[in-house]
Amino acid sequence: MHGSQKSLLLKEKFMAEIARDPAFYLADVYDLSKDEIRERTMEKFASLVHYVTSEPLDVFNYRMQLISTVDPGFWTRFGVHFGLFLGAIRSGASPAQFNYWIEKGVIGLNGVIGCFGMTELAHGSNVAGVETTATFDEQTDEFIIHTPHLGATKWWIGGAASTATHCAVFAQLIVKGKKCGVKTFIVQLRDVKTFQLKPGVNIGDIGKKMGRDGIDNGYIQFTYVRVPRAHMLMKHTQVSREGIVTDPPLAQLTYGALLSGRIAMVADSSNTAKKALTIALRYAAVRRQFAAGKNQLETQLIDYPIHQRRLIPYMAQAIAIGFTSLILTKMYNELTEAMETLEPGDPNLKDVLEKLKETHSTSAGLKVRPLNKHSAHGHAWRQSTSAGRVVVDTVTQHTPDFPTCMQTLQYNAHGKSGRALVSSWADAQKGKPLAPGVAYMSEKANLTAKSDGKLDLADIDRAWACVAANVVKKAAADFASHAASGISKAEAMEMCSQSRFIAAKLHTIGYIFRMFRQACNEQEEGPEKQVLTDICRLYGLWQIEEQGASFLKYGYFTGEQMDKVQSEVDGLCLALRKVVIPVVDAFAISDHIINSPLGRYDGDVYTAYFNHVRAANPPTKEHPYFDRLIKPLLERKPLEEEDVDAAMGFSEELAELEKERKASKS
Amino acid sequence: MHGSQKSLLLKEKFMAEIARDPAFYLADVYDLSKDEIRERTMEKFASLVHYVTSEPLDVFNYRMQLISTVDPGFWTRFGVHFGLFLGAIRSGASPAQFNYWIEKGVIGLNGVIGCFGMTELAHGSNVAGVETTATFDEQTDEFIIHTPHLGATKWWIGGAASTATHCAVFAQLIVKGKKCGVKTFIVQLRDVKTFQLKPGVNIGDIGKKMGRDGIDNGYIQFTYVRVPRAHMLMKHTQVSREGIVTDPPLAQLTYGALLSGRIAMVADSSNTAKKALTIALRYAAVRRQFAAGKNQLETQLIDYPIHQRRLIPYMAQAIAIGFTSLILTKMYNELTEAMETLEPGDPNLKDVLEKLKETHSTSAGLKVRPLNKHSAHGHAWRQSTSAGRVVVDTVTQHTPDFPTCMQTLQYNAHGKSGRALVSSWADAQKGKPLAPGVAYMSEKANLTAKSDGKLDLADIDRAWACVAANVVKKAAADFASHAASGISKAEAMEMCSQSRFIAAKLHTIGYIFRMFRQACNEQEEGPEKQVLTDICRLYGLWQIEEQGASFLKYGYFTGEQMDKVQSEVDGLCLALRKVVIPVVDAFAISDHIINSPLGRYDGDVYTAYFNHVRAANPPTKEHPYFDRLIKPLLERKPLEEEDVDAAMGFSEELAELEKERKASKS
Repeated sequence: MHGSQKSLLLKEKFMAEIARDPAFYLADVYDLSKDEIRERTMEKFASLVHYVTSEPLDVFNYRMQLISTVDPGFWTRFGVHFGLFLGAIRSGASPAQFNYWIEKGVIGLNGVIGCFGMTELAHGSNVAGVETTATFDEQTDEFIIHTPHLGATKWWIGGAASTATHCAVFAQLIVKGKKCGVKTFIVQLRDVKTFQLKPGVNIGDIGKKMGRDGIDNGYIQFTYVRVPRAHMLMKHTQVSREGIVTDPPLAQLTYGALLSGRIAMVADSSNTAKKALTIALRYAAVRRQFAAGKNQLETQLIDYPIHQRRLIPYMAQAIAIGFTSLILTKMYNELTEAMETLEPGDPNLKDVLEKLKETHSTSAGLKVRPLNKHSAHGHAWRQSTSAGRVVVDTVTQHTPDFPTCMQTLQYNAHGKSGRALVSSWADAQKGKPLAPGVAYMSEKANLTAKSDGKLDLADIDRAWACVAANVVKKAAADFASHAASGISKAEAMEMCSQSRFIAAKLHTIGYIFRMFRQACNEQEEGPEKQVLTDICRLYGLWQIEEQGASFLKYGYFTGEQMDKVQSEVDGLCLALRKVVIPVVDAFAISDHIINSPLGRYDGDVYTAYFNHVRAANPPTKEHPYFDRLIKPLLERKPLEEEDVDAAMGFSEELAELEKERKASKS
Repeated sequence: MHGSQKSLLLKEKFMAEIARDPAFYLADVYDLSKDEIRERTMEKFASLVHYVTSEPLDVFNYRMQLISTVDPGFWTRFGVHFGLFLGAIRSGASPAQFNYWIEKGVIGLNGVIGCFGMTELAHGSNVAGVETTATFDEQTDEFIIHTPHLGATKWWIGGAASTATHCAVFAQLIVKGKKCGVKTFIVQLRDVKTFQLKPGVNIGDIGKKMGRDGIDNGYIQFTYVRVPRAHMLMKHTQVSREGIVTDPPLAQLTYGALLSGRIAMVADSSNTAKKALTIALRYAAVRRQFAAGKNQLETQLIDYPIHQRRLIPYMAQAIAIGFTSLILTKMYNELTEAMETLEPGDPNLKDVLEKLKETHSTSAGLKVRPLNKHSAHGHAWRQSTSAGRVVVDTVTQHTPDFPTCMQTLQYNAHGKSGRALVSSWADAQKGKPLAPGVAYMSEKANLTAKSDGKLDLADIDRAWACVAANVVKKAAADFASHAASGISKAEAMEMCSQSRFIAAKLHTIGYIFRMFRQACNEQEEGPEKQVLTDICRLYGLWQIEEQGASFLKYGYFTGEQMDKVQSEVDGLCLALRKVVIPVVDAFAISDHIINSPLGRYDGDVYTAYFNHVRAANPPTKEHPYFDRLIKPLLERKPLEEEDVDAAMGFSEELAELEKERKASKS
């Protein structure tokens, strides 16, 4: 699950460093105020920036994956500079510009801490709709960055409120009075020595968010702020001294900055789920509830079939997504390397674009397979038990670069994926070769496949290929029939969005299952392989249950076979119950990082929990409001008779109200 | 939707009072610390207690329904006394005891603020497993209340940390050395004048919770605390002066205290959903995102079919649960009245017990139909937009009296409901008459019903009766086959828990649909009735989609008919889009109570939002940590060469680690 033994050893080294680092003191984090959390978050910068400049990038990224499960808020705040701001420069700057920023010290935060100015108050991630303007002034060879109205205020900008000195600003390029599309401009926000705002820059704090309180989200308004022409990132579109605009030959390559974040989120959703499940499963093995008979010990929660059902399939899902993330990260690293060396006319161009398309659509689909159910004991609602915090941070996590929350997130992400699938389907019909992730569409036999009743990995794999092919076919047919009715293609795409959504969902689950199966097959023979195979079967069969309608509708399984699927899932949960504790131990998350007394490795939960609660809430010497609020309440006299009468007479008031109401209507 | 015009007027009166009450000043609530929220919550006691003593109970309960959507934390803290503590006395005290507490002033909080001491650190809501002891001392005619070990500490007791003077303690009754089961004892915790803890009582604060921070949750340990014999509630079991224990003739009637809370939660989940949907739908009608063509206005979110899908069915669900709650509340009121006058041997006893069973199992099922998806724009993650807070408070809401969170909550609640259904099925097979809520089980024809393809209310109703009958039948069959295998009945019940869970889920949805349909039929003819009928159809059909597998498996719909269901849902969303704003306006929730700039009635969201954020976050004169943390970072020197070399040499460290690892294993 860790990719290699070396990776696991590295992770253990990171965990040991974190446990000893005073910046990562975690005992009191659940009781800090927003301001305290923000300051604590900033303290971690100094201890981490050292590694950015000294470690190879993949080692550092791996470290950050771990950091994300320890402190998602810090990960985001740090990631705004290293992921988004630096990512914007990496993907958007010309080689000379890139060198300029590197030499200036952007990697080591020397003189530059960046933020990412994409979203606006009235515009989420619709980059093309951004209304901030960047008008080229030929006379001075500068761009004038300006916020034309309130709705164009840069909004929810992480790091802007009190950290950043610079911002990668997305703005409408205007040259010679003509709009030339949205480009990226590096704008200095604050003086590096004094932290005073630069003239024309107005920044405010947005305050509290739900979860990830360590991020100082702010808003930014620009009033005719001038930056040199060289501060527009010009790898793609270029503006010459004379105001001549040259458009890029490879428009598809321009929005790379968000892709790495999306890939990181897949790893993060698996790691975060593993942390939550370690707590939930260890606790379920300790907690007892209800006795089977008189004078018997109460039953451990994990021995209840229904509790197994609520946890073990999610454990399987976390593992499945973990393997998928390992594979995706590899794909992404290869892709980045290929993109950085690519020139127009390169013979590998087509191949890279195919890969980009697949990585894009797969990661979009995966980003929305969150921890959709969270499991932990009621105690977990106390923040200090950590699982509760995991929920809030994770839900927040899956929304940062999207305009609307959960629901529309699915619209965007699954929507994108759904579009790509419909287009792959059309390619398949024309006999074009498909990328491996969607190759199942080329096999006509998949559409009418039937189960052989074995419910083994091969049978499950065919099942997913069958329903994925059918739902993609339906989405394509719905699109075609809407398009034939005379509306525009864009409208037809919207009208079939529910079918596209279903297609993207089933395609993504099937993809995750396939990656998991591949990882199983690559294991050495032995008892571990058997356990992993059981977990893989559980994931595939449980998701078949969850998405049961499609398997019945397209006839891959009969109703009786679906009953067998249900009892297999029951049986696998029962069988895996014996190994869940070793399995979560194999997630290798230290007690320090779990930071929950209920998820302790040694199982001594109640004493630890009680001592933790007592230490976190020392008795106060004086009651904060007894004299002012409680005492008068306890000693107040009963109501006088006439008060009661007045209160009972509300029917008169009602008549009055109704009269007013009628009067206001007429 | 409000039951009657009088109710709506009352609600408007309540809203006007709340908007003017300084205790309900809401502008800054999202930025308060835990301690501030708790104190603010306590301030509301004084302004509300007045109504408890002066208003008829049903009027006051209706007021509390509204209060719950304004401030769920307060509702819970206030409800601990009036719902749980007072409920325990009402359902457990003998008439003489009841009078004693009333005269003492328990209704008006005069000298008594109660809390509810059921759960223990190592025991959730498994009342029978409680380990606190209450040992009868014949010599002094007292009970000795004692916490025998850490795991028996009363835990998560709302109001204990800094509000309550008394506690309804659940403890094992021990008389003459013999355990006599868990009973309830009223124990004084603090002196009413000084608020000092009584001797032997040890109370601590548990600190922060996720959501509902206004509640002061605490733990309580008793060390040989003596209470008079009369402080055991003796409506059911009685202990005489001589230590003779008399058991109750009607054991089923003992646990009434939680039932009223459960009923209130049904109303609350509808009201809370209505508040969240008002915000989400109004905002979706304002927010624009992505233009359909060049130089066009961007499209309103609500005009995207996929966004309609993510909101309008949930609106239908909130309305469906609202009507169900009106009906259930009426059932509950009749039941309470019947129970209070009931004596052993009463000819109405059987009838009341049947009603109790139905109310119990239906409310258990309904309690777990939460707002399972939440919808609001990304901005909503800022706490001040309210919808985010709604999510956290609501998730917390659905867990208070249950031992484990979401998942096991379903286990408990759906589990209970599932048991009752299996037993009703057995009754049906024996030809016994069934309560109206489960009467569909008596009709054999339901099992093999087929759709007539109309997809109207009658067709949908039959569809739910068909699948509900089939899944209950399957659960009963699974139970029988497990029981036949030689394991105990209790174990067989556990082994079929997944089937029971499915049965309870489908039964509950069908029940909600039936209640909604009944409410539609009772409307006067007119355009409103047409809209309501469309909403009712949407709810029924959308849930058929969501639970599609069962409809296909039991053959009520064909695959093609299921496609038609999908396009009907699309069509209904599109048709209802025109009326969603009037519909949420009809929820009649004032801007003050919505307390979100994005959910404003007038739609002027951006200006209001910006002004609100700016007012809540005034500029600070000095940066809190620039000099200490940011400046050194910006000005630090790049790493020395040798530092980098050392950092790169991590492979040596890894080798070291591996050596240690091997050593520790051997």
